[in-house]
Amino acid sequence: MSESVAGQPCILCCAITGSVPMKSDNPAVPITITEQVESSHAAVEAGASIIHAHVRNEDGSPSSDPDRFAALKEGLERHCPGVIIQFSTGGRSGAGRARGGMLPLRPDMASLSVGSNNFPSRVYENPPDLVDWLAAEMQRYAIVPEIEAFDLSHILQAIARHERGGLYGPLYVQFVMGVKNAMPADRAVFDFYVQQMRVRAPDALWCAAGIGAAQVVVNEWAIAAGGHTRA
Amino acid sequence: MSESVAGQPCILCCAITGSVPMKSDNPAVPITITEQVESSHAAVEAGASIIHAHVRNEDGSPSSDPDRFAALKEGLERHCPGVIIQFSTGGRSGAGRARGGMLPLRPDMASLSVGSNNFPSRVYENPPDLVDWLAAEMQRYAIVPEIEAFDLSHILQAIARHERGGLYGPLYVQFVMGVKNAMPADRAVFDFYVQQMRVRAPDALWCAAGIGAAQVVVNEWAIAAGGHTRA
Ligand SMILES: [Zn+2]
Ligand SMILES: [Zn+2]
Ligand SMILES: [Zn+2]
Ligand SMILES: [Zn+2]
Repeated sequence: MSESVAGQPCILCCAITGSVPMKSDNPAVPITITEQVESSHAAVEAGASIIHAHVRNEDGSPSSDPDRFAALKEGLERHCPGVIIQFSTGGRSGAGRARGGMLPLRPDMASLSVGSNNFPSRVYENPPDLVDWLAAEMQRYAIVPEIEAFDLSHILQAIARHERGGLYGPLYVQFVMGVKNAMPADRAVFDFYVQQMRVRAPDALWCAAGIGAAQVVVNEWAIAAGGHTRA
Repeated sequence: MSESVAGQPCILCCAITGSVPMKSDNPAVPITITEQVESSHAAVEAGASIIHAHVRNEDGSPSSDPDRFAALKEGLERHCPGVIIQFSTGGRSGAGRARGGMLPLRPDMASLSVGSNNFPSRVYENPPDLVDWLAAEMQRYAIVPEIEAFDLSHILQAIARHERGGLYGPLYVQFVMGVKNAMPADRAVFDFYVQQMRVRAPDALWCAAGIGAAQVVVNEWAIAAGGHTRA
């Protein structure tokens, strides 16, 4: 279930589908629920402990349909018993509160953005009232958020929110690097992120995800620094 | 025109009006063009070198009306000859390209946001195509941007944009700290900002603005660290 560096187990999270790639980009991208369950099964056998899941419509376009999330959860529980199921509440799959419409299914975890930032061609909008609502829904359904930190202030906002009791469970922060127009995959910034997590939230867990070409580089940084990682 | 710390002249920028405070908040807030010109005159006599200007409608609400900016510029040139005039292109005073409608007036400087972030109750939206357009307009009219950095990635994006020739004149970055839901006024972050500017863009100028209660604290940090500052 985990790789180990210096005695620290490393949690591997596999984002089986994401919200962007299509079959035309890569025929191996799992789109149907059956494909997603089997892809997750293979990931778990390869060492993944967390499955980060988006769902898709029949045509491959991103969706936040709770029925699809329910079917995926049922398949994962049958084929990958014990795996940690994390649903995406990201803004590419829906708008407003539709992004959290699957939270009553009580996945183990769900992604949560606590700030806004630019994406390659648009603004990734996470208005404060939506962030508050998503965090409250996660508390209501006992779901541990994975904070998606696209910038430094998102890390500080997550720590402050956790300290005031506004996030369910342990604090789990993911550094997202390499999205065009947001934070690049930058070593000095990565080191500062790690140091700030240690100083400000020593009991928290952190992981890191590099987007696109930055993926393997950021994986290596995270594992070597004793963090967790997403592929 | 300037205070001096350790032989380095400190540029003082005065934001005479801003976009938020009303006469009901503070009767001294200058709203009419006449009030703005006289407030700027007093600021220059007190040592300000840059006037950061928003304009208002008759009722005090924020505006981006080029005619008002033109009247203000004319008044400033008459009452404060030589002062550096900086117009705001901030999103509280207009939407989309209306935010840059006054740039053909060729102020010396204009504020420019290069990323998006949360504000106290909404998203501060600076979509990539608008950022590109505002930066191009500033190049067209020979206007030096003041980059408003509400988060760390904004600083890195500004440096990268300047390196590829996408910003007119010298790089001038303002760290904005203390806006609720964005970057707090945090000493460790401030120190990292300063260090990163020195390493990545040693020829650039930087200044810092603390919002609300953080104003004087951030002013002191900036002056002591050899930067410039806004009040
Ligand atoms: Zn995702
Ligand atoms: Zn299976
Ligand atoms: Zn302003
Ligand atoms: Zn005068």
